[in-house]
Amino acid sequence: MRAVDIITRKRDGYELSREEITNFLQGVVNGTIPDYQAAAWLMAVFLRGMTRRETVDLTLAMAHSGDILDLSDLIPYAVDKHSSGGVGDKTSLVVVPLVAACGVPLAKMSGRALGYSGGTLDKLEAIPGFRVALTGEEFRDLIRRNGIVLAGQSLSLAPADGKLYALRDVTGTVPSLPLIASSIMSKKIAAGANGILLDVKLGSGAFMKTLDEARALAQIMVQIGLDAGRDVTAVLSDMNQPLGEAIGNALEVEEAVHTLRGQGPADFTEHCLVAGSEMLRLAGQGARWTDDAENRALLAEKLRSGEAFEKFKLLASAQGGDTRVLDDTSLLPQAPIVVTYGAKQDGYLSKVDALQAAIAAFDLGAGREKKTDDLDLSVGIKVHVKQGDKVQAGQTLATFYANSAEKLASARVLMDDVFAYSPESVPELPLFYGVIRGSELS
Amino acid sequence: MRAVDIITRKRDGYELSREEITNFLQGVVNGTIPDYQAAAWLMAVFLRGMTRRETVDLTLAMAHSGDILDLSDLIPYAVDKHSSGGVGDKTSLVVVPLVAACGVPLAKMSGRALGYSGGTLDKLEAIPGFRVALTGEEFRDLIRRNGIVLAGQSLSLAPADGKLYALRDVTGTVPSLPLIASSIMSKKIAAGANGILLDVKLGSGAFMKTLDEARALAQIMVQIGLDAGRDVTAVLSDMNQPLGEAIGNALEVEEAVHTLRGQGPADFTEHCLVAGSEMLRLAGQGARWTDDAENRALLAEKLRSGEAFEKFKLLASAQGGDTRVLDDTSLLPQAPIVVTYGAKQDGYLSKVDALQAAIAAFDLGAGREKKTDDLDLSVGIKVHVKQGDKVQAGQTLATFYANSAEKLASARVLMDDVFAYSPESVPELPLFYGVIRGSELS
Repeated sequence: MRAVDIITRKRDGYELSREEITNFLQGVVNGTIPDYQAAAWLMAVFLRGMTRRETVDLTLAMAHSGDILDLSDLIPYAVDKHSSGGVGDKTSLVVVPLVAACGVPLAKMSGRALGYSGGTLDKLEAIPGFRVALTGEEFRDLIRRNGIVLAGQSLSLAPADGKLYALRDVTGTVPSLPLIASSIMSKKIAAGANGILLDVKLGSGAFMKTLDEARALAQIMVQIGLDAGRDVTAVLSDMNQPLGEAIGNALEVEEAVHTLRGQGPADFTEHCLVAGSEMLRLAGQGARWTDDAENRALLAEKLRSGEAFEKFKLLASAQGGDTRVLDDTSLLPQAPIVVTYGAKQDGYLSKVDALQAAIAAFDLGAGREKKTDDLDLSVGIKVHVKQGDKVQAGQTLATFYANSAEKLASARVLMDDVFAYSPESVPELPLFYGVIRGSELS
Repeated sequence: MRAVDIITRKRDGYELSREEITNFLQGVVNGTIPDYQAAAWLMAVFLRGMTRRETVDLTLAMAHSGDILDLSDLIPYAVDKHSSGGVGDKTSLVVVPLVAACGVPLAKMSGRALGYSGGTLDKLEAIPGFRVALTGEEFRDLIRRNGIVLAGQSLSLAPADGKLYALRDVTGTVPSLPLIASSIMSKKIAAGANGILLDVKLGSGAFMKTLDEARALAQIMVQIGLDAGRDVTAVLSDMNQPLGEAIGNALEVEEAVHTLRGQGPADFTEHCLVAGSEMLRLAGQGARWTDDAENRALLAEKLRSGEAFEKFKLLASAQGGDTRVLDDTSLLPQAPIVVTYGAKQDGYLSKVDALQAAIAAFDLGAGREKKTDDLDLSVGIKVHVKQGDKVQAGQTLATFYANSAEKLASARVLMDDVFAYSPESVPELPLFYGVIRGSELS
């Protein structure tokens, strides 16, 4: 089976066999198939697509291209979550300790910020001393002792995905549904997840711009789960406007702390309750936690009682973090310049654009362009309003946290494109557009 | 302009600008664009196609990626020919001296055999001493002195084509009309041609299997010529069955000599007269040689008088060839084993398959799989019959020229698939399916 023949068959729109997909993937990982053949194949996949069967086979081939994390002796049924990435998306910081506080052990691997998307690891590093690079033994030890751990992804998991993703990034083959779906799902399967909550975001600040695109991606991933013996639930959530108020690493940790103490923004708190309830439902395997109202009451109690916050502090302290900054968030990295942004006119907000807000925060230094870039943990933006809000000229809509007057000036200009005003009232945006539960399809 | 953006635009079906195409090509040649990006772009071009304007820009960018041969001080209007490759296609060996004998200076560069296609350079090397590797000064000197020269292509002409072709070969992107057309035309333009005869072959032994494919390729190349200021004529010729009788290097030189002396196979002689007449028409630039009947009479006279043969001998001797083998072709490399192949049954031949015959000749050692392989100049096959011929069981249909009993046995088995028999009469195949003259379209 020559690589060029597999490329040619995909080019001509044929369905590849499991053997062809597996052999091709192996060749890419062990270097017998050069990058230029992988690149041509990726473009053929992009333009010809993949069937459900091919996508599942690709996912499993990538998952098995390296180690498979096996925590089954510690966690008989492992629940995991994944967000497709958004602006101000600090959900993991809240739902991981929140669900763990309900007795569900959570061993999660996360990623770093890239482009306009934030990264959970960077946010956690706003807590002085927090270590995200753990050895396998430390990882196992923490889940055994505390039932909660959150670390960077091991390079030995799904190496084929890492290799293909790097190629996709430079060959114009990133936005392909089967390639995105298999990339996400292969990492979750390699990380040993049995039940997976996918937060598929849609809108200006998300990778998927429309509900149709997001639903299509969610459906493929739920299908992969069904065929690969994993229980997958996908929620379709809004990312046209920022989630919560804070965009920026230390600012998001502060907002997560407020939320874990029951004092977070209404939209973000609601988002965490919905996500948390779905994670409980997965963990319950149909035997318990099948009622959303009860789940929400349980989760709300964990926020109210302080148990969720204590779980977060346990997570932080166990990984070397200085928990004093969680008890007193004014000790988190602070930007030297704090300036507000006022409404340009009276009216109803017809747009609070998540992507534009992310670009402004990026400009302040909150993100990184390349994986090797530094970022400033202290800077960012808080956006205090939502689409549909009635505002008056001069009213504070946002606050900048900057480290230089120059960057502030630039972000201020960009901020003008975040908002649009209408003389007529404007509907609010929903938080969610739907839920797809694999357990209800199988 | 980033390479990934150009790839993405082509991926999404947009028409690339001249600047985008030229910059991309330059990047590929100077190495700033890595092979994996070129490979992804080639697959996007394969699947999305190119407009006429893009194809012309690609052709000119490739032509100008290296040196442009300028013989205008020696040949004010240069005529060239190209064959898309076939089985037993020794046309250049005949028409180059034949047309040169009419007073048209011909400085031609040719290629080598690869796969089942023969190569003019290999055939010429069946003449002991013949040198195809000439310096630029030797090339110019021979065209000045003799009005005829035939050499290997300089590596400094259209290097982008060489680089892209090597990538296409291993990424499943060879059979793309704009890529094929630009590859052929860029080399001819870089070689300084003003008028170009394209022999586009179709059928089992050709790259293009159908008339529609061949006509589409021919039309694109004629259009490139129009837009690039070159006069291009394309003839669509049959390659379902071998052209002439001989397949194999020394055997084809022998048949070319017979043809130049007016004693060649009828079909091959007719093919050369048509091709030669079109080359004269191009050379005449509308001022002379506009009448096919007159052209054919002139060409036939050059065969009859021996002038064409003398021109071939001049070509050979000027490049170091031993012309005694042309006066006495029994001095050409001779295979030790000569055995005939008889008809399996009575009937009309409903198939004399060119590709199968080429495979059998290849098996005897007449071709090469990789560019670095050796080939045996002496071996090959003569196929003495044509589709539609009435034959009797046992009648000699072909003759093998082999260098080992083992290879002969293998070729004999393959030969059974060359022929098919019908109890009813079968129509002959046409030699040509049409002519497209750029001069009549412009």
